[in-house]
Amino acid sequence: MGADGDDAAERGTVVTPSAEFPPLDAGDRAALGRIGARWHNPRSAGDLPVDPTLGRRDHHPRPTRFGRLAPIDMFTVAQPDELVATGAAHLPGSRPGRAVARLRRTLVGPPLASSSVLYERMRKLVALPVLSSDLLSSVAYGPEAMLAVLVLAGSAALGLALPLAAVLVVLMVAVGLSYRQTIPAYPHGAGSYLVAGDNLGRTAGLAAAAGLMLDYVLTVSVSVAAGVHAVTSALPGVTRWTLPIGVLVIAALLAGNLRGVRTAGNIFVLPTYAFVVVLVALLAVGWAKAAARGFAPVPPPAVPATEGLGLLLVLRAFSSGAVSMTGIEAVSNAVPAFRPTEWRNARTTLGWMVAMLVTLFAGLIGLIHLDGLVPRADETLLSQLGRATFPAVGYAILQATTALILLLAANTAFNDFPRLLFFMARDSYAPRRFLHMGDRLAFSNGLVALALGAVAVFVAFGGRTARLIPLYAVGVFLAFTLSQAGMVVHWRRRPGRGRRRRLVVNAVGATLSGLVLLTAAVAKFTEGAWVVVVAVPLLVLLFRRIHRHYATLHRALAPHPPPPAGPAGSAEGEELPQQVRHLVIVPVARLNRASLRALAYAASLGRPTLAVHIAPEEAEADRFRDQWRAWGDHLRLETIVSPYRSVIGPLAHYLEALHAAGPELTLTVIVPEVVLRRRRHRLLHSRAEQRLRAALRALPGVVVTSVPVHVPR
Amino acid sequence: MGADGDDAAERGTVVTPSAEFPPLDAGDRAALGRIGARWHNPRSAGDLPVDPTLGRRDHHPRPTRFGRLAPIDMFTVAQPDELVATGAAHLPGSRPGRAVARLRRTLVGPPLASSSVLYERMRKLVALPVLSSDLLSSVAYGPEAMLAVLVLAGSAALGLALPLAAVLVVLMVAVGLSYRQTIPAYPHGAGSYLVAGDNLGRTAGLAAAAGLMLDYVLTVSVSVAAGVHAVTSALPGVTRWTLPIGVLVIAALLAGNLRGVRTAGNIFVLPTYAFVVVLVALLAVGWAKAAARGFAPVPPPAVPATEGLGLLLVLRAFSSGAVSMTGIEAVSNAVPAFRPTEWRNARTTLGWMVAMLVTLFAGLIGLIHLDGLVPRADETLLSQLGRATFPAVGYAILQATTALILLLAANTAFNDFPRLLFFMARDSYAPRRFLHMGDRLAFSNGLVALALGAVAVFVAFGGRTARLIPLYAVGVFLAFTLSQAGMVVHWRRRPGRGRRRRLVVNAVGATLSGLVLLTAAVAKFTEGAWVVVVAVPLLVLLFRRIHRHYATLHRALAPHPPPPAGPAGSAEGEELPQQVRHLVIVPVARLNRASLRALAYAASLGRPTLAVHIAPEEAEADRFRDQWRAWGDHLRLETIVSPYRSVIGPLAHYLEALHAAGPELTLTVIVPEVVLRRRRHRLLHSRAEQRLRAALRALPGVVVTSVPVHVPR
Repeated sequence: MGADGDDAAERGTVVTPSAEFPPLDAGDRAALGRIGARWHNPRSAGDLPVDPTLGRRDHHPRPTRFGRLAPIDMFTVAQPDELVATGAAHLPGSRPGRAVARLRRTLVGPPLASSSVLYERMRKLVALPVLSSDLLSSVAYGPEAMLAVLVLAGSAALGLALPLAAVLVVLMVAVGLSYRQTIPAYPHGAGSYLVAGDNLGRTAGLAAAAGLMLDYVLTVSVSVAAGVHAVTSALPGVTRWTLPIGVLVIAALLAGNLRGVRTAGNIFVLPTYAFVVVLVALLAVGWAKAAARGFAPVPPPAVPATEGLGLLLVLRAFSSGAVSMTGIEAVSNAVPAFRPTEWRNARTTLGWMVAMLVTLFAGLIGLIHLDGLVPRADETLLSQLGRATFPAVGYAILQATTALILLLAANTAFNDFPRLLFFMARDSYAPRRFLHMGDRLAFSNGLVALALGAVAVFVAFGGRTARLIPLYAVGVFLAFTLSQAGMVVHWRRRPGRGRRRRLVVNAVGATLSGLVLLTAAVAKFTEGAWVVVVAVPLLVLLFRRIHRHYATLHRALAPHPPPPAGPAGSAEGEELPQQVRHLVIVPVARLNRASLRALAYAASLGRPTLAVHIAPEEAEADRFRDQWRAWGDHLRLETIVSPYRSVIGPLAHYLEALHAAGPELTLTVIVPEVVLRRRRHRLLHSRAEQRLRAALRALPGVVVTSVPVHVPR
Repeated sequence: MGADGDDAAERGTVVTPSAEFPPLDAGDRAALGRIGARWHNPRSAGDLPVDPTLGRRDHHPRPTRFGRLAPIDMFTVAQPDELVATGAAHLPGSRPGRAVARLRRTLVGPPLASSSVLYERMRKLVALPVLSSDLLSSVAYGPEAMLAVLVLAGSAALGLALPLAAVLVVLMVAVGLSYRQTIPAYPHGAGSYLVAGDNLGRTAGLAAAAGLMLDYVLTVSVSVAAGVHAVTSALPGVTRWTLPIGVLVIAALLAGNLRGVRTAGNIFVLPTYAFVVVLVALLAVGWAKAAARGFAPVPPPAVPATEGLGLLLVLRAFSSGAVSMTGIEAVSNAVPAFRPTEWRNARTTLGWMVAMLVTLFAGLIGLIHLDGLVPRADETLLSQLGRATFPAVGYAILQATTALILLLAANTAFNDFPRLLFFMARDSYAPRRFLHMGDRLAFSNGLVALALGAVAVFVAFGGRTARLIPLYAVGVFLAFTLSQAGMVVHWRRRPGRGRRRRLVVNAVGATLSGLVLLTAAVAKFTEGAWVVVVAVPLLVLLFRRIHRHYATLHRALAPHPPPPAGPAGSAEGEELPQQVRHLVIVPVARLNRASLRALAYAASLGRPTLAVHIAPEEAEADRFRDQWRAWGDHLRLETIVSPYRSVIGPLAHYLEALHAAGPELTLTVIVPEVVLRRRRHRLLHSRAEQRLRAALRALPGVVVTSVPVHVPR
């Protein structure tokens, strides 16, 4: 197995640029050897007419077309059979292509070499803000989302917020504990896709992945919407620019992530801690003021009920409040990013995070209740609270830090979504292009997909946080439930000390998450949750079909040793040079420099060659044969009169008939191709080469060779 | 010159399917012979491994993929080196392609063989209706167009119609006489494009062509608009469906012409004569009624003036009335369609046509004046006249024949427009695709272009005849003026009896036409004529640039004999097989069946071969070399580490560097291509082959060969 062996260890959570080139399994490798053993040695064809290392060893670089002024060393020699491309070799050849490349470089920076992939390890005090921005920022919209539902039943119903908050705190602690013990069990990273897939089977893993993917898209949309709302609460004048601002923010996040934010950790530290400090200050001042009046609640302004206070409304309020927990899974995904002992540090960090979440969440709900605040469309509750509690400067700092941490929360999705797609693509459940690291070592395709999805959702829901919340909870809690249910199975299968206690903790977490999932899906079905309920199974189906396609392809392309002797039995079965039997065909429309060059090329191959001319009528056929004789009649010419004047159809059918007459032959169709420099000139030509190529694509055993002639200007 | 010689005579007005294959000039033919004389005879490469006549001579057809149930003879043998494709060979290979072909066949009929091109000769009594429908139908909207302008100055101004009509009659006669003597001078057809180009130079010819092209588009739009108006005048209920009806009518005309109306002549006879008879009856009854009251004019209803009665208004009215003459040029275009002596019969027919036009036009203007009718938006003047003159049945017949002859007039544009484009394309002033005769022997591309243009104009102007008229006159009279001015030059250059008299007649015609052109362009500039004034020079510019492109291409592709000895001096200069020096390159991403087949194919060519692998990092390069050795290391492998992970760029630059190192080499890049059956599966792949092909297009001397592997399902 050699160099292929060490990949097994990497299949955990490490991303590598080599993932696009999966190693061979033992069977394929053996088949390769058996095929190679029967090759006739073609090295006898002679030495190469040029030095493939381009004479770089002698340091006599020649100027190329793109290096007219100064010879640019596009390649350096690493070893006798290896070159290393320099940055210049990555620029496109065409002038507009290079202009685009330069613009791109200005926007997202110069390309980064594969060797720059860093596996940074974080201290707990850095990991805490990096991993908690998503979770803690949720308190900016979670409590409000809950109260916004309750107030539909009138201001009296707002009193229910306190018991609901208590239940949510229990839920947070239970899920936190549950994840806490997932961490040591999966020290290489415990993403829901991995844990659910490992323990509950592929479909569960894919369902978790689908839930997470929707979750990441919504994290961006909701965080940006809430962040913009924090700004518009302070500056009501810009409210009508909500949509453009949000789209611009998402575009900026995309651009930043395409750059590949190298100093990611440090960016997070200050805003997150600032947000926590400001919020703690808010709670302290607020509660102090409340204490000064003996904790007497200010009665909220009378809001008329628009709905009755039923069980459904309470459940909707509860599941809306549950979005305060989104992001709690971040630590478990990122265990390998901690310093050793990783799992222990991760577990401690998770503990701190949950404690902070519970404190902020409960404190805010209580303070809102005491101050008698009511959700309003034009101003967030946090903004109202800030205005009521802080002087102007403090209020401005609160809104600014809130907007900032929400931005960071959106950014975490840009980190996690492409990684999830990478892992899925590695398992062939997502398109392979998500394996490709762009020239900034970022998963550009995944980033763009996330940004497009987030913009679509953001715009479709008018950039309103309240309208996005119903979709949010379902995806998140689906992933929570499947991950923790997976852990239950994990403990059942694995004997060990304390596994019963662990099983119970995870079972409680899974059950509670499952209840929230069910509540959210049912209670908010008509409000938008149905989108997620429909999308998850469709996505799972899509993932499975993608997998099936790649599996079919893999089987079809696996090398298998040739039959013992003679030519290949099946069409396209040739895997040995001596099996290939040639017939070269040159379609010729008229005798000009392009077709003469194609004929010369064909004849130079020294294989049986047949020229074919398609004529619209007998008279033209005669005229062409006359020209052919004037040229010298060097090759066998077959004329096909096509009385209905189509060219491609008869030619394709003729080639197919030749293939049927000699199924063991490889037909090489040599097409003269006139290459026009200017795209608009192509409108003046029938592009017969392209149409011929398209018609021949379906035919087995037909090789198409384009012999270009370049036309000046 | 052999078979190529007789084409010179054809360059007049005959369309042939062979026009897509222009003959070689003497120089090219000689060069061809000199090139061929230096070929090494490649026939030594051996006999063909299959019979290129497909064994059809022995009548043992083999079933092909499309003939599973019964072997279809797609080809029949004409002579040892010629096959004739049958109808089956024109069907596309793919299932959806064949479904489309079947649908097409149902709509436009089965394909017609090139041999079915008929050069029908017409008797005068048939030619008259065929060629006059455009001209005579103009009286359905011409008089009205004139009066509609006059009435803007109030009903009193309508009296000016009589003197204006008198001037127009003079104009008709003058232009008629002028065309009358063009006919014997150009017995092969005297289209304005030809006559103006011949005598006034290319630019004048192109300007005439541009004018005619706009004229044809407007003929369709105006005739259809007027025809629909004739219907809605009788049935006011359908007025709001004007646009959809008009578009449908144009679509029906397109479909009919794509079918290629074989019995064209006969279709025209009845409606045209019926229209003339009905109109003569209308005039007879109307004038008889007027005579009965002593030719006392009925005073028109008072219409308030919206504009002052100035010179400009009169000129506008005049140039609007001049559209009654559109179509007068039809006979001179179609001289070869007459029976011998063609020019004499054509001249007689033109005389009859002008006489009929003058009679109908003058009679109608007079009758409208006597009956005191005023143009109205909701009903045509002809309809008002019919209602006032005929009983209900007669009125219905009048409206029906009017609509019908307008339809035929529109149809003549469908006949002439593609022919004009054909002649222009033959002279390389229009895209070559307009030379192609579709499978119904119609110029499908030209027909579709005309229909699209007409629909666009019709819809843009709301299907209102009155709004289209201002555009109409300019294009028509531009072509008239240039054609007759061309004749003036023609007579000046050619000595002969009576040339002075002829010159004067044509000069009068040209001058009068030129005055109308100027009047129309200036007086109606702001009403829409500016569109034509702007479009004609732009079109001429476009035609010239198209010509320049084709000329450059022709020069670049002309065969020129190779240098005396040795390899070709320039890149892509190889016109002899012995000049081609090969280096085969196989880019290999991974070792699977597709790349193994490409390697086997490459090795089977027996030329120096180099495999190239692009690796994103050193570790992957090592892994690949290990696999390569496991296979047997049969070909020289060069690995290029691309630390920025792009593949296409470094590969293209490497090939370019190889080309720079050995400019005399032909690099054949053999690309393994996995062909997926289903289009949606292609989304799952990076289409690296296509991107590589695109990147290599620009490189000189690089031949690209696709070795396909077909994947089931």
